Amino acid sequence: MFLRACRLEPVENVPVWFMRQAGRSLPEYRRARGNVSILEVVRRPELAAELTLQPVRRYGVDAAILFSDIVVPVAAIGFGVDVQHGLGPVVANPFASEADLERLRPLQPEVDTPYVIEAVKIAVEGLSPFGVPLIGFAGAPFTLASYLVEGGPSRSYARTKALMRSDTGLWTALLDRLADIALASLRSQVIAGAAAVQLFDSWVGALSRADYERYVMPASRRVLEGLKDLGVPRIHFGVDTGELLALMAKAGAEVVGVDWRVPLDEARARIGAGFAVQGNLDPAACLAPWDVVANEAREVLRRGSGIGHVFNLGHGVLPETDPDTLARLTDLVHATSPDSLR
Amino acid sequence: MFLRACRLEPVENVPVWFMRQAGRSLPEYRRARGNVSILEVVRRPELAAELTLQPVRRYGVDAAILFSDIVVPVAAIGFGVDVQHGLGPVVANPFASEADLERLRPLQPEVDTPYVIEAVKIAVEGLSPFGVPLIGFAGAPFTLASYLVEGGPSRSYARTKALMRSDTGLWTALLDRLADIALASLRSQVIAGAAAVQLFDSWVGALSRADYERYVMPASRRVLEGLKDLGVPRIHFGVDTGELLALMAKAGAEVVGVDWRVPLDEARARIGAGFAVQGNLDPAACLAPWDVVANEAREVLRRGSGIGHVFNLGHGVLPETDPDTLARLTDLVHATSPDSLR
Repeated sequence: MFLRACRLEPVENVPVWFMRQAGRSLPEYRRARGNVSILEVVRRPELAAELTLQPVRRYGVDAAILFSDIVVPVAAIGFGVDVQHGLGPVVANPFASEADLERLRPLQPEVDTPYVIEAVKIAVEGLSPFGVPLIGFAGAPFTLASYLVEGGPSRSYARTKALMRSDTGLWTALLDRLADIALASLRSQVIAGAAAVQLFDSWVGALSRADYERYVMPASRRVLEGLKDLGVPRIHFGVDTGELLALMAKAGAEVVGVDWRVPLDEARARIGAGFAVQGNLDPAACLAPWDVVANEAREVLRRGSGIGHVFNLGHGVLPETDPDTLARLTDLVHATSPDSLR
Repeated sequence: MFLRACRLEPVENVPVWFMRQAGRSLPEYRRARGNVSILEVVRRPELAAELTLQPVRRYGVDAAILFSDIVVPVAAIGFGVDVQHGLGPVVANPFASEADLERLRPLQPEVDTPYVIEAVKIAVEGLSPFGVPLIGFAGAPFTLASYLVEGGPSRSYARTKALMRSDTGLWTALLDRLADIALASLRSQVIAGAAAVQLFDSWVGALSRADYERYVMPASRRVLEGLKDLGVPRIHFGVDTGELLALMAKAGAEVVGVDWRVPLDEARARIGAGFAVQGNLDPAACLAPWDVVANEAREVLRRGSGIGHVFNLGHGVLPETDPDTLARLTDLVHATSPDSLR
């Protein structure tokens, strides 16, 4: 159902999965992961595959996404990045000058991240009894650059934007390297068995449309266009991207992820015909009583119109989410006839 | 010029001021403030007024905004909130239940915040030789509630949104109290001499349009409508509010603040006729070389069309901003003929 929806084909049910469905909200995740750091989990293919599968077993969602982190490839080539619990990626020596480009050599997935390829293979095998496809995972050039330049999470992206505007040559070189790294990683995941990919440009909504088009879109296109020959659906996602949706589609995606700020029918109007949409229940809505969740989910389904719609949250599952809510949500989506939505 | 632009009257120059123009980017600010906490500065009217005036002296901007913080009134009635350097408002005992409403008694500005009234009077007197009006300042119910409920800054507003959806009665009571507090504070500022007001709903862009309309707009309207008889321009501002602009205007404002994500001509189309717009250069653009800043500022002016436009940044001045850039920016805006923009 997931792949059919991505391709705008008729479906019996609207497919559903949840960003960060493999995460701290699941007790079996917390048990399996223990105190192992996220980058260490990723280096243990059996464990990464197990975490990838857990939400499929529990919820019966229509897609799994490889358990990973957007900094995995740059960490693997030795850029020097750590992921701190509750904070996110932290870079001891942020990217600041031409010389730092040397720290971003091309990724050779078979050599640098063999454990990612292995995790994909194990996960795909584990998913096969469920008939559920695996989505490959990579961070988009802007979002990744923002961590490398800021040294960690940011609210203003002041340094990133300063570099972008002040030394556009260096900025472009940085984004091109990150694009090639993301592309190499995603290609290796698809070749190992991933049936779709999602490019996470989580923080790109911090940019105006003009800035996105000038400074970021060419690199994102480089990733997405570079995957075209593989023939798998490409999902392009970010939060706060209401103004960018059309450009994110044009960058080369079959599916555009939409956060909860823009109703899906309006998102579709902005994007234009020929694209599927993914989203877009507010993750915070899942903390409400079930009646409220159900009403908001029905509204998302209605706006999604039942065709070319992959049901999801508008961003990742919040750690405090009750898994039972996501289970009921999955059932609600599956129980809704797409015909009733048109 | 500022007041004329707010009223959509023809202007000789597009007026300009900068949110957080009185702030850490100014050396004279850092000297005058020293290590005094922000809440303590606010309790010293001479100092608060001095900080309010500094950017007018340095830049020749067309408006001053009272130096304050959105938590000043709730701190004054003893809710128990502190503002930590580099972090923002922090609440030791967050708002969680019906009983916490007791901690939010009505504000009596003359008794609870006489120093705010005094600062307004001193600032207005100091501004009079410059012929520059003072903008009064208050935090909007949602943004204020988010701090009280989360206990500090947040990315997801999970607790705030959970309360909003789970106990809508309590949420409404909370927002109504905060609305009355904001209204009382703004009225006292106008009566003391402020010639306009800005209601800061900085984080309300975290909500979908449906949630804004249902859970927040009535309280914001309560503040803005409650000021109507005073006849001063009401500016209504938040970031990430591309989807909310029309509702924020309808809540009862003459001027709608727009962040850098939505070009001003599109913002105007969304808002409809009869409103002025304020904005919307990306604050991070001010960290770029002057040529880049100037080009982006000219584009903002062009999109603003020279009538009913108050030039500003799309959010507050970043602390690392070079004051010379803001000085040149002020001059650029003043040197541009509004007629050339139509």
